[in-house]
Amino acid sequence: MEQTQSPDALSRFRNVAVIGAGVIGSSWTALFLAHGLNVVVSDPRPDVETEVRDELAKIAPTLDALGLPSTDLDRRVRFEADTARAVEDVDVVQENGPERLPFKQELWAKIEKVSPQALLLSSSSSLTASQQAALMKYPERLLIGHPFNPPHLIPLVEVVPGEKTDPKAIEDAVAFYSALGKVAKVIHKEIRSFVANRLQGAIFRECVYLVKEGVVSVDELDDVVTNSIGLRWAAGGPFQSFHLAGGSGGISHFFQQFAPGMRIAWKGFQETNVEPDEATTMLIIEQVAASYGKKPMEELERRRDRKQLAILRALAAEEAEA
Amino acid sequence: MEQTQSPDALSRFRNVAVIGAGVIGSSWTALFLAHGLNVVVSDPRPDVETEVRDELAKIAPTLDALGLPSTDLDRRVRFEADTARAVEDVDVVQENGPERLPFKQELWAKIEKVSPQALLLSSSSSLTASQQAALMKYPERLLIGHPFNPPHLIPLVEVVPGEKTDPKAIEDAVAFYSALGKVAKVIHKEIRSFVANRLQGAIFRECVYLVKEGVVSVDELDDVVTNSIGLRWAAGGPFQSFHLAGGSGGISHFFQQFAPGMRIAWKGFQETNVEPDEATTMLIIEQVAASYGKKPMEELERRRDRKQLAILRALAAEEAEA
Repeated sequence: MEQTQSPDALSRFRNVAVIGAGVIGSSWTALFLAHGLNVVVSDPRPDVETEVRDELAKIAPTLDALGLPSTDLDRRVRFEADTARAVEDVDVVQENGPERLPFKQELWAKIEKVSPQALLLSSSSSLTASQQAALMKYPERLLIGHPFNPPHLIPLVEVVPGEKTDPKAIEDAVAFYSALGKVAKVIHKEIRSFVANRLQGAIFRECVYLVKEGVVSVDELDDVVTNSIGLRWAAGGPFQSFHLAGGSGGISHFFQQFAPGMRIAWKGFQETNVEPDEATTMLIIEQVAASYGKKPMEELERRRDRKQLAILRALAAEEAEA
Repeated sequence: MEQTQSPDALSRFRNVAVIGAGVIGSSWTALFLAHGLNVVVSDPRPDVETEVRDELAKIAPTLDALGLPSTDLDRRVRFEADTARAVEDVDVVQENGPERLPFKQELWAKIEKVSPQALLLSSSSSLTASQQAALMKYPERLLIGHPFNPPHLIPLVEVVPGEKTDPKAIEDAVAFYSALGKVAKVIHKEIRSFVANRLQGAIFRECVYLVKEGVVSVDELDDVVTNSIGLRWAAGGPFQSFHLAGGSGGISHFFQQFAPGMRIAWKGFQETNVEPDEATTMLIIEQVAASYGKKPMEELERRRDRKQLAILRALAAEEAEA
């Protein structure tokens, strides 16, 4: 498994503050604790302590399956509602607060005063480091560390520096996430939604279009994806896939053969009209209820996580053998 | 594994003609033979027999890993360049010829004269059954059975009836592919590129855009996909994924939260301009050469197939346990 412990690589990042402990913050907390780090959780909600401890218990079996320590996780976690006190003396801040720009801008301005050395990471999926740093005196240490849900399980973390981020901070962020067993990918330009969510959005738009047009139902579409491109892209990305689709001529032959058709198809995507309006979303919601509504959410979630885990383990075993 | 033998279900489909024996035709041939069917391969190329036998030998280890018979596969294959003679007395025709409409139209008109009972299936990824049937007297038995490459390994087959296809033929096609261990999905409307390739096209357009804009390189993009959405969608499709992303409120809560952002993002896809023009394809080709060019194509292909196989087996084991 990729998620092995690397105590030496983590020695510079012993103490972490997790700001905002919803689904993402709790998952980060579990992962940090499993790797032996000390975590201060800061969230103003009165019930945060109970909720985080419940989440940790829920996540423990997955950590265990990943080969990580999963017992007594909460020995090294403490709770501190006051942000300034929470970030005193930490090496890393992982922020998962609400996606509101003024909130984040004020937060970082406050944090940099008490924590002048820490690496400052935001889980934001939509607000760039450049935007978030507007009120900071020292924006050099701030950047995006955007995970894919759930962070304790899915390998990808998109590391997106802002205009003023120091290259050293990028290096540190990659070192930190890599030591946690994550696959940290540096995104070279600040772009709306970053990379994975843009790709997800592009395909989801087309999924909704096909259901709206009555070409397939939502469960049929899901089956199409899991049994073709999902399987394919878990094994190799789109460019490598099309490189192989070109036979001995590779991607160059692939373009020769398919560029004319692609040109028409790509124009088609620009011209077809579909919006997440009320009628369209209602149609999807009804079909999802019919297909998945009978099973409790927790069961669906557990099955998803177990399947993802099974795939990760299979790929790691295959990698080790190769 | 899903790819188990079901001899009874296949008793109506004992004798199959494979028209056109390139990569797809050879792969179908291997799968049919592994399930005990008798196959006549029809392809005018003089070297077709050697090529197909070579392909069968290459595919055998994968069939073996799928738990299918893989020795002496070519005992039940024969070669017949003349199409009319090849389709005499067969139960099924699986066509994999060139993607040229006049070719296919004339082919089916010829075939229906000699083979009045057979189920007629085209592997075409772009020409619909309605288009292909234009010169037929009895278009009721013709429909698309579009596999995902390689057909002997990837589960999905898109079953796309034409305007005049008999519901009984749709049922037969689903029964045939299901008995072969495939996941047959009926597509309810004839639409350009069908479903899986449309989704693949939508995401690929955005992949090329992101590389062109310098946001990521091709190998970085591939890593992003395999470590996030590829993994996610091998375990569950987009609709189920977003249903779970909505927490206890499911997809309904998901839309409440994200529809405004989606609206902007979807417009963005329509407005961003990217074409598979020469400069763009050259950029991709160069980056692919730099990232994957050093490894022999056969090695890349073998590793991809092994990974896909490992995922399929892991999911089947997980399914059996649940």
